[in-house]
Amino acid sequence: MSHKKLTIGLFGFGVVGEGIYRVLQDTQSLNASIKKICIKHIDKERNAPAALFTDNADELLNDEEINVIVELIDDADAAYSIVTKALRQHKSVVSANKKLIANHHQELISLRDEFGVSFLYEAAVCGSVPVIRNLEEYYDNDLLSSVSGIVNGSTNYILTKMKEEQLPYETALKQAQELGFAESDPTLDVEGIDAVNKLTIILKHAYGINEIPEDILYSGITQIHERDIQYAQEKGFNIKLIAQSIQVEAGKVAAFILPTFVDQENRLFSVRNEFNGVLIGSKLADEQFLYGKGAGRYPTSSAVLSDIAALRYDYKYEYKKTALGIQNELSNEVYLQVYVSFESWDTIEKEHFVAIEQVFKSTARNYIIGTVKLDTLHNAEWFYDKNVSVIALGTGVITDGELVHNAASVLELAQ
Amino acid sequence: MSHKKLTIGLFGFGVVGEGIYRVLQDTQSLNASIKKICIKHIDKERNAPAALFTDNADELLNDEEINVIVELIDDADAAYSIVTKALRQHKSVVSANKKLIANHHQELISLRDEFGVSFLYEAAVCGSVPVIRNLEEYYDNDLLSSVSGIVNGSTNYILTKMKEEQLPYETALKQAQELGFAESDPTLDVEGIDAVNKLTIILKHAYGINEIPEDILYSGITQIHERDIQYAQEKGFNIKLIAQSIQVEAGKVAAFILPTFVDQENRLFSVRNEFNGVLIGSKLADEQFLYGKGAGRYPTSSAVLSDIAALRYDYKYEYKKTALGIQNELSNEVYLQVYVSFESWDTIEKEHFVAIEQVFKSTARNYIIGTVKLDTLHNAEWFYDKNVSVIALGTGVITDGELVHNAASVLELAQ
Repeated sequence: MSHKKLTIGLFGFGVVGEGIYRVLQDTQSLNASIKKICIKHIDKERNAPAALFTDNADELLNDEEINVIVELIDDADAAYSIVTKALRQHKSVVSANKKLIANHHQELISLRDEFGVSFLYEAAVCGSVPVIRNLEEYYDNDLLSSVSGIVNGSTNYILTKMKEEQLPYETALKQAQELGFAESDPTLDVEGIDAVNKLTIILKHAYGINEIPEDILYSGITQIHERDIQYAQEKGFNIKLIAQSIQVEAGKVAAFILPTFVDQENRLFSVRNEFNGVLIGSKLADEQFLYGKGAGRYPTSSAVLSDIAALRYDYKYEYKKTALGIQNELSNEVYLQVYVSFESWDTIEKEHFVAIEQVFKSTARNYIIGTVKLDTLHNAEWFYDKNVSVIALGTGVITDGELVHNAASVLELAQ
Repeated sequence: MSHKKLTIGLFGFGVVGEGIYRVLQDTQSLNASIKKICIKHIDKERNAPAALFTDNADELLNDEEINVIVELIDDADAAYSIVTKALRQHKSVVSANKKLIANHHQELISLRDEFGVSFLYEAAVCGSVPVIRNLEEYYDNDLLSSVSGIVNGSTNYILTKMKEEQLPYETALKQAQELGFAESDPTLDVEGIDAVNKLTIILKHAYGINEIPEDILYSGITQIHERDIQYAQEKGFNIKLIAQSIQVEAGKVAAFILPTFVDQENRLFSVRNEFNGVLIGSKLADEQFLYGKGAGRYPTSSAVLSDIAALRYDYKYEYKKTALGIQNELSNEVYLQVYVSFESWDTIEKEHFVAIEQVFKSTARNYIIGTVKLDTLHNAEWFYDKNVSVIALGTGVITDGELVHNAASVLELAQ
């Protein structure tokens, strides 16, 4: 077995970067060492020898001895510049930057192939949970029917605290930030942007679909109203921000991110705090579940380390769905059952619903439960209105009036 | 990417064999076809063209066009003969036979290496749940701290029905057999032999430990008394048959299989029916959880298919822990907190316990809750007495008086 010596150039020395540094020092069997660390603020005191640090990226990128760049900085534009240069310098790259990967994937993979190196990013999706590796290696045949789950630890932490401790949104967000679960810019988390970036990456590995985040319907959790939480309490539901991707027919995949009411029967119901959980549906294996910490210092470090370990064997993602010529594309021609709450009836276009099952009017807040086409929702102005809250009823979708996939519980939920 | 054409010789045409045959017919992208199927009873009617079948193993083993043998028969001795011959004929092998693998692993891997082929067996451990692949590929650095879980679907089905529907043991066992969750000889399941075979395989991939099942302490579920189930009900516990392997210090791993009281805080609590669930502890990633169907036609087929798919790329297990020279061995020098129930005080040797926390006497059934060394338990006659029921209190172990690993809840449970 080849067992390559890795000489690493590290970008970023935040909690994750420092964690990686410590573990590599303590873990000789990894046969990997950090030669140089590039940071923004060279004058800041660090818990590592000063000689390791530089603020000049080229010192790492032009060092021929360095064969791996580990990129752990927040700024996606700076990361783009670092990663593209590193690949051109024949260095393999490990990154945790979902925004970078979701938006520049095809270019980065072209560079990777042109320069014969590797580009790994397990930490970019669900932290420590090996979602990408399993989609690449184990669910690489075409029997996969759905990949759906909680992929953002920060919003899940906030929603858990809002439900279990009745904390107001702002307090829960502040806690998440203090615990290091939220991105430096919380908007990315709470508006669902982080989740849609991750779903974009999942789609590549699960279905061979290369789309940019803008093509996918998503929302976050900021528009969720206290009445929605009360409704969930009354019905025994939890609200979870769930990314779904479902093979609805040969060649067609429905993908979207919505806050979702889930009942106790759903494995995602009990995914609490910063944990992530992904349900993988397969025609043969039924439902499988991968669960673990999705945010924070150590979970991210863990995924980065597994990528570093894999580079010892020159591991590369093969994008097997694409390589096997499996043709899939996104389809918005499916229906969702949704709960929509709002203050003013003028904001909602009722004719957008193909069916309305329940209408609730009150002076405090109104809601409709109805069935709507994903395509309609994607184009509806009211969906993007911050005073309107759209929450899916259970996971799964409806096609041509039939409940499909894991949608069996959709209608029951609304009873 | 190489994309090898696979020509398969299949041994066994039971539910799994037939499932594989159907899926390969329907799934062109796998680029694999079954050329010949060897069965025991050639006269039995089958749902496939008669020309496919033979009862002569050599027709498959000597066919040079066949490059993969898929072995799905129950008989471990016959399987041994088939698999060793196949490897010697330079054919890669996919097997689901845990008994064969647990008992002949080193010889089979030597043959595999000598003849330059592959030997995969994901279906042998936890059915559809990709435990082996994840241990091989993702948890291959030395930060793994524990691998513990429910690895036998049949006993888990029985225990679930005994608890949730108050079914007697025999009725629950019969149901499990009718549903195809039990091995042809139920003893293997209910006596814990199937579970210890699987744990033996897990130990190779997780820790590089090559032991035979006889070296590991295990018990099954047949000795569980109705009073034990009542005790669990009263305390709000579930009884689960749990295989544990825990790195207790550098180079030392404690491994054992015991019925275990788990409380709601434990993820294994809600693994019901034929499902399996494995908790993977890592120094960095904390607790991860893999969950899915562990028994039955389709889950097993799913794992076999993933192995077949991997052979297209000449995938091989690398036993990275062993390859990296990480030295681990089993240690019984740890302590467990156990509940022991029995009828007669003469059966129990109280001096075997380093501490006894609770004693309960009644005309119906007595029990002790105490702390005992794993080594003592392994050698205690009463442990193997069918009238004595030994159930661990929570997962985890105690070393030198300190709670370690996921044992945090051990003492709380006994309050």
